[in-house]
Amino acid sequence: IINLSSCFLQGILERLDAGEIVIGDGGFVFALEKRGYVKAGPWTPEATVEHPEAVRQLHREFLRAGSNVLQTFTFYASEDKLENRGNYVAEKITCQKVNEAACDIAREVANEGDALVAGGVSQTPSYLSCKDKTEVKAVFRKQLDVFMKKNVDFLIAEYFEHVEEAVWAVEVLKESGKPVAATMCIGPEGDMHGVPPGQCAVQLVKAGASIVGVNCHFDPDTCLKTVKLMKEGLQAAKLKAHLMSQPLAFHTPDCGKQGFIDLPEFPFGLEPRIVTRWDVQSYARKAYDLGIRYIGGCCGFEPYHVRAIAEELGPERRFLPEASEKHGSWGNSLSMHTKPWVRARARKEYWENLKPASGRPYCPSMSKPDGWGVTKGGKELMQQKEATSEQQLKELFQKQKC
Amino acid sequence: IINLSSCFLQGILERLDAGEIVIGDGGFVFALEKRGYVKAGPWTPEATVEHPEAVRQLHREFLRAGSNVLQTFTFYASEDKLENRGNYVAEKITCQKVNEAACDIAREVANEGDALVAGGVSQTPSYLSCKDKTEVKAVFRKQLDVFMKKNVDFLIAEYFEHVEEAVWAVEVLKESGKPVAATMCIGPEGDMHGVPPGQCAVQLVKAGASIVGVNCHFDPDTCLKTVKLMKEGLQAAKLKAHLMSQPLAFHTPDCGKQGFIDLPEFPFGLEPRIVTRWDVQSYARKAYDLGIRYIGGCCGFEPYHVRAIAEELGPERRFLPEASEKHGSWGNSLSMHTKPWVRARARKEYWENLKPASGRPYCPSMSKPDGWGVTKGGKELMQQKEATSEQQLKELFQKQKC
Amino acid sequence: IINLSSCFLQGILERLDAGEIVIGDGGFVFALEKRGYVKAGPWTPEATVEHPEAVRQLHREFLRAGSNVLQTFTFYASEDKLENRGNYVAEKITCQKVNEAACDIAREVANEGDALVAGGVSQTPSYLSCKDKTEVKAVFRKQLDVFMKKNVDFLIAEYFEHVEEAVWAVEVLKESGKPVAATMCIGPEGDMHGVPPGQCAVQLVKAGASIVGVNCHFDPDTCLKTVKLMKEGLQAAKLKAHLMSQPLAFHTPDCGKQGFIDLPEFPFGLEPRIVTRWDVQSYARKAYDLGIRYIGGCCGFEPYHVRAIAEELGPERRFLPEASEKHGSWGNSLSMHTKPWVRARARKEYWENLKPASGRPYCPSMSKPDGWGVTKGGKELMQQKEATSEQQLKELFQKQKC
Amino acid sequence: IINLSSCFLQGILERLDAGEIVIGDGGFVFALEKRGYVKAGPWTPEATVEHPEAVRQLHREFLRAGSNVLQTFTFYASEDKLENRGNYVAEKITCQKVNEAACDIAREVANEGDALVAGGVSQTPSYLSCKDKTEVKAVFRKQLDVFMKKNVDFLIAEYFEHVEEAVWAVEVLKESGKPVAATMCIGPEGDMHGVPPGQCAVQLVKAGASIVGVNCHFDPDTCLKTVKLMKEGLQAAKLKAHLMSQPLAFHTPDCGKQGFIDLPEFPFGLEPRIVTRWDVQSYARKAYDLGIRYIGGCCGFEPYHVRAIAEELGPERRFLPEASEKHGSWGNSLSMHTKPWVRARARKEYWENLKPASGRPYCPSMSKPDGWGVTKGGKELMQQKEATSEQQLKELFQKQKC
Repeated sequence: IINLSSCFLQGILERLDAGEIVIGDGGFVFALEKRGYVKAGPWTPEATVEHPEAVRQLHREFLRAGSNVLQTFTFYASEDKLENRGNYVAEKITCQKVNEAACDIAREVANEGDALVAGGVSQTPSYLSCKDKTEVKAVFRKQLDVFMKKNVDFLIAEYFEHVEEAVWAVEVLKESGKPVAATMCIGPEGDMHGVPPGQCAVQLVKAGASIVGVNCHFDPDTCLKTVKLMKEGLQAAKLKAHLMSQPLAFHTPDCGKQGFIDLPEFPFGLEPRIVTRWDVQSYARKAYDLGIRYIGGCCGFEPYHVRAIAEELGPERRFLPEASEKHGSWGNSLSMHTKPWVRARARKEYWENLKPASGRPYCPSMSKPDGWGVTKGGKELMQQKEATSEQQLKELFQKQKC
Repeated sequence: IINLSSCFLQGILERLDAGEIVIGDGGFVFALEKRGYVKAGPWTPEATVEHPEAVRQLHREFLRAGSNVLQTFTFYASEDKLENRGNYVAEKITCQKVNEAACDIAREVANEGDALVAGGVSQTPSYLSCKDKTEVKAVFRKQLDVFMKKNVDFLIAEYFEHVEEAVWAVEVLKESGKPVAATMCIGPEGDMHGVPPGQCAVQLVKAGASIVGVNCHFDPDTCLKTVKLMKEGLQAAKLKAHLMSQPLAFHTPDCGKQGFIDLPEFPFGLEPRIVTRWDVQSYARKAYDLGIRYIGGCCGFEPYHVRAIAEELGPERRFLPEASEKHGSWGNSLSMHTKPWVRARARKEYWENLKPASGRPYCPSMSKPDGWGVTKGGKELMQQKEATSEQQLKELFQKQKC
Repeated sequence: IINLSSCFLQGILERLDAGEIVIGDGGFVFALEKRGYVKAGPWTPEATVEHPEAVRQLHREFLRAGSNVLQTFTFYASEDKLENRGNYVAEKITCQKVNEAACDIAREVANEGDALVAGGVSQTPSYLSCKDKTEVKAVFRKQLDVFMKKNVDFLIAEYFEHVEEAVWAVEVLKESGKPVAATMCIGPEGDMHGVPPGQCAVQLVKAGASIVGVNCHFDPDTCLKTVKLMKEGLQAAKLKAHLMSQPLAFHTPDCGKQGFIDLPEFPFGLEPRIVTRWDVQSYARKAYDLGIRYIGGCCGFEPYHVRAIAEELGPERRFLPEASEKHGSWGNSLSMHTKPWVRARARKEYWENLKPASGRPYCPSMSKPDGWGVTKGGKELMQQKEATSEQQLKELFQKQKC
Repeated sequence: IINLSSCFLQGILERLDAGEIVIGDGGFVFALEKRGYVKAGPWTPEATVEHPEAVRQLHREFLRAGSNVLQTFTFYASEDKLENRGNYVAEKITCQKVNEAACDIAREVANEGDALVAGGVSQTPSYLSCKDKTEVKAVFRKQLDVFMKKNVDFLIAEYFEHVEEAVWAVEVLKESGKPVAATMCIGPEGDMHGVPPGQCAVQLVKAGASIVGVNCHFDPDTCLKTVKLMKEGLQAAKLKAHLMSQPLAFHTPDCGKQGFIDLPEFPFGLEPRIVTRWDVQSYARKAYDLGIRYIGGCCGFEPYHVRAIAEELGPERRFLPEASEKHGSWGNSLSMHTKPWVRARARKEYWENLKPASGRPYCPSMSKPDGWGVTKGGKELMQQKEATSEQQLKELFQKQKC
């Protein structure tokens, strides 16, 4: 195994333009929640300040697994979010500190290999509370200032349910002059206002995104369907952009329009839905065949899932990641097991065709999503959104504190 | 949250004798395989030398999650094992170095909290290849020498399928004068020679173990059944010992006598079987009610699973672990979610009663174990064992290398 | 229980026009296959001649269960079908005899209650072999001659995959002057040439059908979706017709466009999919709420399923069927069981909310349909149809006979 | 197909002693419940008087399917049962009339083929209400008087949960001088007083039974386990008897000691558990291999299930039943289907290996049995039995009537 990648350390667009496959990283908030550093519910990234060693180690594992991009751990690190949800965090942990630390850690680890650092912003409470364009853009600009100061390699606007807000984010990020990627957490039915994926993609590219796609909220198969619709939308509009996908590592065939948050198992009972490394290899192959060249994961993606992308696309990339030293392709490390029936598992056909049992005979295989929002359109959702506005949420907080 | 535990840092037996609950740690080989540092198949712990930072971080996460014992990462670190399976490892990584590094890392992290360090040995290829008592004991003694040099707090003989070998291990470890715990990877049907759990426990205590129980191979429910049989065996023999359980974090109701290795999903398709934190809370409660006071986990147990033990038994222990700062009890961190149906999940009844869906409608809920060994007795298994002896395995290796 | 229905014995249209609910019967070929009188594969109704007592008994059971219409058992009793598939039947069992006997038996039993007799025709091998309109119509006319001679009360054209052939059938049946109902065995995706359900309904009504809907091939939920599309199509075209549904008694959420025949379980492994009486009650209620007033079943519907329709709609109809003497509403006949936990099942909430287990932990909950036809459009299907034409099928027969 | 069986019409013991396979019939109460003639809950057979044509038709179907024995439909037709549970039946329908009509119908149909008629008795409310031996025996004797008057060919004591009562029944039936078969509705754990199956068998043979085995309450696999234990018990006691099994046609791997009545799906949600014809063929083969020569079914067994026994054992018996004229062995009647993928199902390997999907992704595959009786021994059950005694049940009745 010779890692050839170090000899072509270039920018994200140079890589993609040259036809390279770029492998993203996995889901920080879920992985660090299981490791004890992120709180489910707020999902804020104060760990960059509180426990940098834990964040650093996770970056390193993704790097070893084959990630070519290390995203700064700045999900939900906008000032309005940290204030709103993160108020259990000590006051000295400011938005600025969280974002700066995130950049420093990502760069430190990126330098151990050939990875790029991408600064990331995501949807804001300000938008969901109907603040205007200027206010929302100011929130993004605050994070961008840090990214520029720390000189990240490129920028990602990710996890947007409304294309309107995503467009605002892209417009802000483009002010930097750096390449911008934009992914929405939507399914084939489109964004929460009913804009179909194809139109979302067109708007994002027109706003300045060089890379568009989806992340989070849906399983790999569903995400690929959505990206396919985006691709078709761009083709119809005669626009060019690179495609990107970073799905969940959970099987969610039973999701409604708003994704896995509405599933009864979210977020503390999703274990039986976790995808295997073989599921990821199948996803990576399908993504590649669809023309996607920026392939990564989101919530649930652990380092071994990212390695599975790198191994599946090993023939195309002509190298394997460092962590493959500890992994036999398609189970071949079992070929010397003392039990002959375990040795018999050391082959591709075995794992490709396995239908893994849940070990849970008292559980169903699908759930009905919660929430009336599932079958209603964008309009009702907005009403619902207002029904539990920022103001009301603060009141809920106050009440709970007492 | 005030951690009162630091004020009573005492030995393992003082703690247990005083009625304290001791929380073990989780499964290193599975967790580090997913992080990219352990190879499935050999499952050897050379990461202690190759990537100490990754081992250290995992220890730290378990400590934060509530572990009172940090086991040295010396599973399968006997000389015969490392030679036999681990020969893909660079030659300079000797058995001695692996074990020494394991002790150093564990002690370093234990000093960050109030944890004890336990040196661990497990079953050997020498025994499985029918080497005699003297030879097998020599293998254990080699690891013990390191543990004594590094002055671990107590010793664990774990993952034994044959009580005969476990007794030999206990006898060696007892030479040290330190407390010895012994756990077997057996189910209610007993060891591979057909010795029932009750008799296994009696033999282990007579050999010098102060703590007995089970680890690995079976899910929590099955392990508790086995420990119950051990308890009854000890009572019948009028022997006293502390009880211990460190089960899998996988649901395995369909296991045969030899445990999860025979399941078709082992080891790369076990995801749908992963237990939730709520499953672990249920396990911790049942273990406590059964009189078990050393409660931990084995393969599949991640830091958040260990935290679940600590949270379930928080009332009895009167404190929560550090990592509970990032976890609301029974989902209460969801109480401020913007969606009312997600807020409705912020309660114990919800998670206790949830039957989580697999998201896999094309998969079954149970599997038939592989291998004719499943329904046959110990005698045939020994024949099978000889059928793929150490010698034959070496030949397999040679063949594969060519 | 007073059966008021006998006092208003009227024609089918008088009943429906008056707002009455008309209950259909169940599936003869499946029920009689299990009783040993119909051969799966050919599915032809020579039992009317060979074993009239068995056909009579099944009619009687449906009558007792609440059926207001007894369909002549003339499914696949067209001359071309009997010749093509039924050639294992003795030569003296002619098409004419089968159809006449079917009429006689149905009338005999109908006279025991207040039921109407409906003569039924279904899709023909002639159409599938691309015979022209004249030839295909001649086939229907042959059966119609018998129905007229035996003076059935009305006519049903059912189980058509192509609206073109269904229209031809309706046109022939309308020559009689009797009311005509027409149901297609299609799903929401429309007929095999791609005509959507709404357009199918419009064409059928324009051709002379007074009642339109669907039968067979899909489960109740799917059938209701299709009828809803038909209803919307008629409304858009400002046409009026009564609605009818006679679905499978099998759960088929995993069906492709062509229905349950493509499921791997068809026809000898469908047992786990059989709907319960409570599933049927739910179906009957939804059908009623959708405005359907001719509510029956098809393959898999046994007498107790039909009774469930009658019981669910008892409040609206103001009477229960005779067979309800042997059935407590919502399980109330369990209220005197010796076991208290069985008595606890004697209530509506219990059965409405039960998620019945399959008792098959090694089986999945859904299947992937066989056949490339699933994802292809009507054009390819026609090619496939031609690929195994009548001629080729005859050759297959010859080959098998040798 | 030439039915050779008519040339050797002999008694049950002559047949079994000669090594012949005797095929029993299926489950009348369940089949007739679905057809509308038996009420679930009471499960009494007044249909023999009320609707003899329905009972006759079912007998005929089983005869055609291959049954060599037609059991009189006298299940729960003891006087105490009819009085206790059947009091919704008109007074003129006396115990005597029900039993006489049952004999007449069975004989009438038996004469259409080569079948024997067996008079059957089953467990009584008198025993369950702790009446003494004399009283209980008197109940059986009343039914026996009818059987002698009608000259049945042999006698069956079936569906006994307590071997004590079964022995009393056998003793009464033996007074007739006719051969007696005795089957208990128990599982491998033994009868409700804790008597193991082996001892039950020994007691029944000593009391005079020539044929012993099990019926009802458990699925085929479980029943075969129980008969195996009976066989071993008889061998250990050096006793000889023919073996018999008539299991449920429902999969019940999740049953507790008391069988399917405790499953939450009993009796109105058992559909997904119904066995396929292929399951029955597998059962018939295993039963034969175990040495069982009287092979039939109980609740859930429909005519096509009995035919599957006859077809599986066709090679041994050298003929097929009449109903096989309407059934291709192992699906071969599909070999001329127009769709090639359906034709591909016309073979043994296909159906043998099919894992049929439930079509119910929101349902589990197993249930937890209701009732504390599941995990308790015989003693507590007796207390529970007394807790809802005959007296209390009558009071419940009274209450409900008001």
